Amino acid sequence: MARIVMKFGGTSVADVKRIRQAALHVKREIEAGNQVSVVVSAMSGKTNELVGWTREAAPVHDAREYDAVVASGEQVTAGLMAIVLSEMGIPARSYAGWQVPIHTDDAHGSARITGIDATELDKRMNEGWVPVVTGFQGVAPSGRVTTLGRGGSDTSAVAVAAAVKADRCDIYTDVDGVYTTDPRIVPRARRMNKISFEEMLEMASLGAKVLMIRSVELAMAQKVRLVVRSTFDDPNAPQIAPDGTPGVPGTLVCDEEEIMEKQIVSGVTMARGEAKITLRDVRDRPGVAAAIFGALADESIIVDMIVQNVADDGSVTDITFTVPDGEYDKAIRTLQAAQNIEYAKIVGSKGNAKISVVGVGMRSHAGVAASMFKALADKSINIQLITTSEIKTSVLIDDEYAELAVRALHTYYGLDRQDV
Amino acid sequence: MARIVMKFGGTSVADVKRIRQAALHVKREIEAGNQVSVVVSAMSGKTNELVGWTREAAPVHDAREYDAVVASGEQVTAGLMAIVLSEMGIPARSYAGWQVPIHTDDAHGSARITGIDATELDKRMNEGWVPVVTGFQGVAPSGRVTTLGRGGSDTSAVAVAAAVKADRCDIYTDVDGVYTTDPRIVPRARRMNKISFEEMLEMASLGAKVLMIRSVELAMAQKVRLVVRSTFDDPNAPQIAPDGTPGVPGTLVCDEEEIMEKQIVSGVTMARGEAKITLRDVRDRPGVAAAIFGALADESIIVDMIVQNVADDGSVTDITFTVPDGEYDKAIRTLQAAQNIEYAKIVGSKGNAKISVVGVGMRSHAGVAASMFKALADKSINIQLITTSEIKTSVLIDDEYAELAVRALHTYYGLDRQDV
Repeated sequence: MARIVMKFGGTSVADVKRIRQAALHVKREIEAGNQVSVVVSAMSGKTNELVGWTREAAPVHDAREYDAVVASGEQVTAGLMAIVLSEMGIPARSYAGWQVPIHTDDAHGSARITGIDATELDKRMNEGWVPVVTGFQGVAPSGRVTTLGRGGSDTSAVAVAAAVKADRCDIYTDVDGVYTTDPRIVPRARRMNKISFEEMLEMASLGAKVLMIRSVELAMAQKVRLVVRSTFDDPNAPQIAPDGTPGVPGTLVCDEEEIMEKQIVSGVTMARGEAKITLRDVRDRPGVAAAIFGALADESIIVDMIVQNVADDGSVTDITFTVPDGEYDKAIRTLQAAQNIEYAKIVGSKGNAKISVVGVGMRSHAGVAASMFKALADKSINIQLITTSEIKTSVLIDDEYAELAVRALHTYYGLDRQDV
Repeated sequence: MARIVMKFGGTSVADVKRIRQAALHVKREIEAGNQVSVVVSAMSGKTNELVGWTREAAPVHDAREYDAVVASGEQVTAGLMAIVLSEMGIPARSYAGWQVPIHTDDAHGSARITGIDATELDKRMNEGWVPVVTGFQGVAPSGRVTTLGRGGSDTSAVAVAAAVKADRCDIYTDVDGVYTTDPRIVPRARRMNKISFEEMLEMASLGAKVLMIRSVELAMAQKVRLVVRSTFDDPNAPQIAPDGTPGVPGTLVCDEEEIMEKQIVSGVTMARGEAKITLRDVRDRPGVAAAIFGALADESIIVDMIVQNVADDGSVTDITFTVPDGEYDKAIRTLQAAQNIEYAKIVGSKGNAKISVVGVGMRSHAGVAASMFKALADKSINIQLITTSEIKTSVLIDDEYAELAVRALHTYYGLDRQDV
């Protein structure tokens, strides 16, 4: 017997028919003797509709009222899921965030969960009931309804899983797991059996948008094992893990300790539409980086890669960074208008792609960066920028070479499926 | 300074544009120095959509989950209304039923309000805020959300008005008041200035469907003065009562005491599609009526008029009643199948209309029934059935004559507008 939190995203509960499909997965787990709590998102599109109305009502409005409006979406799907489960003979009841209660701070619109009282959920599960909890929301100390911000339902699910001490938290979505890279670019991309929290964080922030970063961070902190799997798989098919063994289909996101064979490179990711901006001969004094990136932050321009070379003579240096293509002109204007930055000139270009390789094995394996550069050089791909972290190496290249680079690296690091 | 509860129905909050129009009425009252609480319905069509989903999820389902789903509609409009009011410079906040709290019993799907804690609403209004309360819902002793049943938002508004001791409860809807009869049939129908609760109850149950009967009953019991008026009137126009005096546009529904000149007949109403069923030579023994109407009630057949003549010789009698046309065949079958009713034969017909005249003046004025029959006889309209109550006289006639009868009675009792 295991205790499982099962989370269904917006496309998995888009209408009553799909809610029924999702409920069959719950039924399978219950019939296998497991205890289950369900966490649901709003029907896909509904949250956007509700958000649209609040904006139409007033472009700038009270976040508490935004929350009151937007939180209604999950209440609908939670109730419908409870009805469908009951119809299948599974005792179920819905809980709005305030009924659990899921306590949050009062940062309306992007609240953080401060604690979950698991008493009621615990009691219900022990009695064989399936509590169906609204994702994405909770209740502030003031007694008002809060929402957690976009994608918050994943975070709700992880928090509930931690509170009820679940053996795992299954995230049902419209993809069947986490892949070594985008299968649309590399048909030989493999679904991973396991991936560490750290790798998942690097993958998620790089464009493999399967799980919200916040939920992965929380899962890592609370040691909640996550499974990413598809709602649209046959609920009654034998449960087979990606490596062919009996187990949970999908990708397990877990502590590094659980992963026996650590890949040097687990995955290859790509982010397109990156603009590169270089400030030449920046006067290298303390606080200059703060001045540059502070000016950009003040304009809400999100900066991705940052590279600063060591100054030749200790007086001037070049600073290069990337922003989304759409922010390129604004970033240039912002820097030109800034009073307290001294530099010779600004140069830059749009239409670049960032390619990254991610893997916890890098920690104990030297030369990954070098091998990456060689693999790209073999295809005559010019590298413009390089950044590295403990488990990730990223390069910026011309967008035209993006798919070629991903395929080359995917093959080079032995990630290709052999059966295609 | 007056304290007013303003209730906006589904068509009045059908989209953000209309919510803005509704909010202008609130603004006018606030600027006139009044204290206001708002009660809102769900956007028109939304409740039907939500109810449809619960039925699709399972034809028979837990009413508690139905409530969890369906109550979400008003939360959306309450939040949007609060946003729009704030945008206009009027401090406002939304309250779900459980936040007020509006206490109800646990009859989910058709709960009754058992009490409203007015502390918070009172405090907010005294501070110049406008509380925006979700209609149609409350919270059960169990802490679960309840709904009051269809049209329950009117009842919510009246209950809130009673709790905060409002001077009146303005029901904003898509008609501009209560008319002496249906203006589509009688162009000379007049909007009434005032109507008593009792008359309104008789009018509402007879087809002048402006207010839910429950809300009128509650208003009468709690002595809450109601005004029925249109959201779509110009909010900035001078406020003129239907009698041409400065005052509240629309129809005031109030205690009989407030109405100086009591009309013998205040209005004429019509209900079509009535089937008439007569049981001939029913053995007249105690309990026979209970047996007949008990059998029909067991099949959920709603009976309207009931007439029983005195038995000639004290042994057999005729019993006639009406049901909706659609229930005619089922009613006949039900009576034929009933074991404990002795009668000679069943006869009946579909396609009749019930015409009623209503007026509190009838109480102190003899001969209204006689004058009504004369007015109909003058137009050669044959009367099939007659029932009377203290302030209402109804007749059943052939449906073909329905409009003619309404127009004749409307003119006969001096209800026609003179300016058309």
